[in-house]
Amino acid sequence: ADIVVLPGDGIGPEVTAAAVAVLREIARCFRHDFEFASHDIGGAAIDRHGDPLPAATVGACRRADAVLLGAVGGPKWSDPGAKVRPEQGLLALRRELGLYANLRPVRPHPATLGAAPIKPHLLAGVDLLVVRELTGGIYFGEKTRSVDAASDLCSYSTFEVERVVRRACMLARQRRGHLTSVDKANVLETSRLWREVATRLVRDEFPDITLEHQLVDSMAMHLLSRPRAYDVIVTENMFGDILTDEASMLAGSMGLLPSASLGDGDGGAAEGQPGDARAGDRSTVIGLYEPIHGSAPDIAGRGIANPVGAILSAALLLRHSLGLEAEALHVETAVAATLEAGIFSADLMPEGRAADTDEVADAVI
Amino acid sequence: ADIVVLPGDGIGPEVTAAAVAVLREIARCFRHDFEFASHDIGGAAIDRHGDPLPAATVGACRRADAVLLGAVGGPKWSDPGAKVRPEQGLLALRRELGLYANLRPVRPHPATLGAAPIKPHLLAGVDLLVVRELTGGIYFGEKTRSVDAASDLCSYSTFEVERVVRRACMLARQRRGHLTSVDKANVLETSRLWREVATRLVRDEFPDITLEHQLVDSMAMHLLSRPRAYDVIVTENMFGDILTDEASMLAGSMGLLPSASLGDGDGGAAEGQPGDARAGDRSTVIGLYEPIHGSAPDIAGRGIANPVGAILSAALLLRHSLGLEAEALHVETAVAATLEAGIFSADLMPEGRAADTDEVADAVI
Ligand SMILES: CC(C)[C@H](C(=O)O)[C@@H](O)C(=O)O
Ligand SMILES: CC(C)[C@H](C(=O)O)[C@@H](O)C(=O)O
Repeated sequence: ADIVVLPGDGIGPEVTAAAVAVLREIARCFRHDFEFASHDIGGAAIDRHGDPLPAATVGACRRADAVLLGAVGGPKWSDPGAKVRPEQGLLALRRELGLYANLRPVRPHPATLGAAPIKPHLLAGVDLLVVRELTGGIYFGEKTRSVDAASDLCSYSTFEVERVVRRACMLARQRRGHLTSVDKANVLETSRLWREVATRLVRDEFPDITLEHQLVDSMAMHLLSRPRAYDVIVTENMFGDILTDEASMLAGSMGLLPSASLGDGDGGAAEGQPGDARAGDRSTVIGLYEPIHGSAPDIAGRGIANPVGAILSAALLLRHSLGLEAEALHVETAVAATLEAGIFSADLMPEGRAADTDEVADAVI
Repeated sequence: ADIVVLPGDGIGPEVTAAAVAVLREIARCFRHDFEFASHDIGGAAIDRHGDPLPAATVGACRRADAVLLGAVGGPKWSDPGAKVRPEQGLLALRRELGLYANLRPVRPHPATLGAAPIKPHLLAGVDLLVVRELTGGIYFGEKTRSVDAASDLCSYSTFEVERVVRRACMLARQRRGHLTSVDKANVLETSRLWREVATRLVRDEFPDITLEHQLVDSMAMHLLSRPRAYDVIVTENMFGDILTDEASMLAGSMGLLPSASLGDGDGGAAEGQPGDARAGDRSTVIGLYEPIHGSAPDIAGRGIANPVGAILSAALLLRHSLGLEAEALHVETAVAATLEAGIFSADLMPEGRAADTDEVADAVI
């Protein structure tokens, strides 16, 4: 399998190196042939090519079986007047590849409950999956800027809502069959569309799924007060961005959480066209895998970043893009064993001697 | 003083009745003359007048010294196809009165830490104030809807950002002098405007204030992992909506939290016009006071709602609209004593015999 690696900025190169080392070990043990090729994205690509998403990077991703990404961004490129920004590269890649469904599983590990700000008794048994819409909404709408005003347009089509809710339903079917759709339907028109489409789709195509609607503000609360009540949560791009960072606190550290961004396996060809591309019917789809944490410029280059989010992203890559379920489970089990052994990076262990990035990766391997 | 009471829907009438009883007691003890007049808003106003914000209500609010509101909304009026919605009444009132700054203080009381999902050691000493922009952004932008698409426009002008950040700075000056401005400047054009304006305003007008910028996703995380690090947090309308509901979990229950919505005391006359109306220079301003909780239709009419959010909103009314600081402190002290005495409504006491709404109010009185 051909795997494109996009290290990106900050701690990106450190954590992807750890994840690649784990994948190499999987290839060795299970006798697979994984080829890795690194390409530039984000700030690193701006510095080298003046473009946060060079054409060569997109081309390589399209030809690959899967893409593993670190993180993008940093103060170096965040000047308010900057013409290009690292984040544009990531956003454009998600869109180019048609990766409309961003899966962010949150399953707090008993060993890391100490690091979570949430009371442990609320966390036992929490196992939720946020499916964030990733190629629409206010992230991609028209923007305007004048001397004394600015605007961002949030828009959604029925097609865009349907496909991501359908994907969430399929995932819910493989889990506990419960779907929570999050919107702000008491204020936003896009949310009213979202709620109508979700309601109709579940009624017509997934009568076996129980659907609940939550307003985003009240979800931000319930995620903390009763996290066990949720199974699959589906929501639009911006709400998903906020809620998943919040949800990471259930796990103890953002550094622990992986994500998978999936399309329909057609490289985004169906983008914007109403159709019935049934996502998930095929066992492998093109996918981009990245930890949910950012580039953490404050600790970059020090070798102390938590590689678990990136390593678990590699596990999702094995599962979703390569169809290697046993191998994925192998990685997940090794991560669990590492955490059980108390091998924690600094984010999980503010005091005492923490393990560095390589030590965590070696323990997993 | 003339106080307009807008009970609204669900538990709104129950909690405003409790808050009015407390205000009557303050009037008696301190020999003030408070006149109360109730008017319709929200679902109740739709039922009676076919309009969530009847002209008579707006007129009464304009003539009043302050407005005390319960909550609006409920499933009865939430049909997706509904032509008018209760929330429109509240949004229109905020806008009509020019109440652009929504103050939501969060100061967890030691007695209620048991009810919070957050670990107690993180909460000791937390004292933050969220200043949410309340009359702009995606809540009020143009909306479109067609058969298969919808849109909401988010826009901000320099003027709108300046006045709310200025208000936040003035409040920070009376506190610990630290301001955190929350945006999503790595993606949104409105957020880049927000960040530029906040940076310039603090530099030029408030050099004594320390300003920090946070991305909304990372704020959703840090609010839980290090809530003590924040003093005043200023943000746009939608982000403020989400973050304050999340922040309510620091206090133990959303039912505890009050809010004050303030303008420049000109009834919104300056709305939309660049000008230098210096908010906060006057000691009393027109204001709308409401608990941050919703109408909670599931428990409405049972007399078990937590009146503390509404009662503390009445304290804010005394402070900000009537300039009665001693009286405001009196109410806040009485609430603290009630909580210390373990007199908890059901939201704070899922097991055991909880106090009902009247019992809590009587204890405060
Ligand atoms: C870097 C940024 C554009 C990105 C986003 O907001 O989508 C990040 O926060 C994420 O959640 O993946
Ligand atoms: C009722 C609703 C329109 C309102 C809002 O979103 O502003 C409420 O959630 C609030 O926070 O006051």
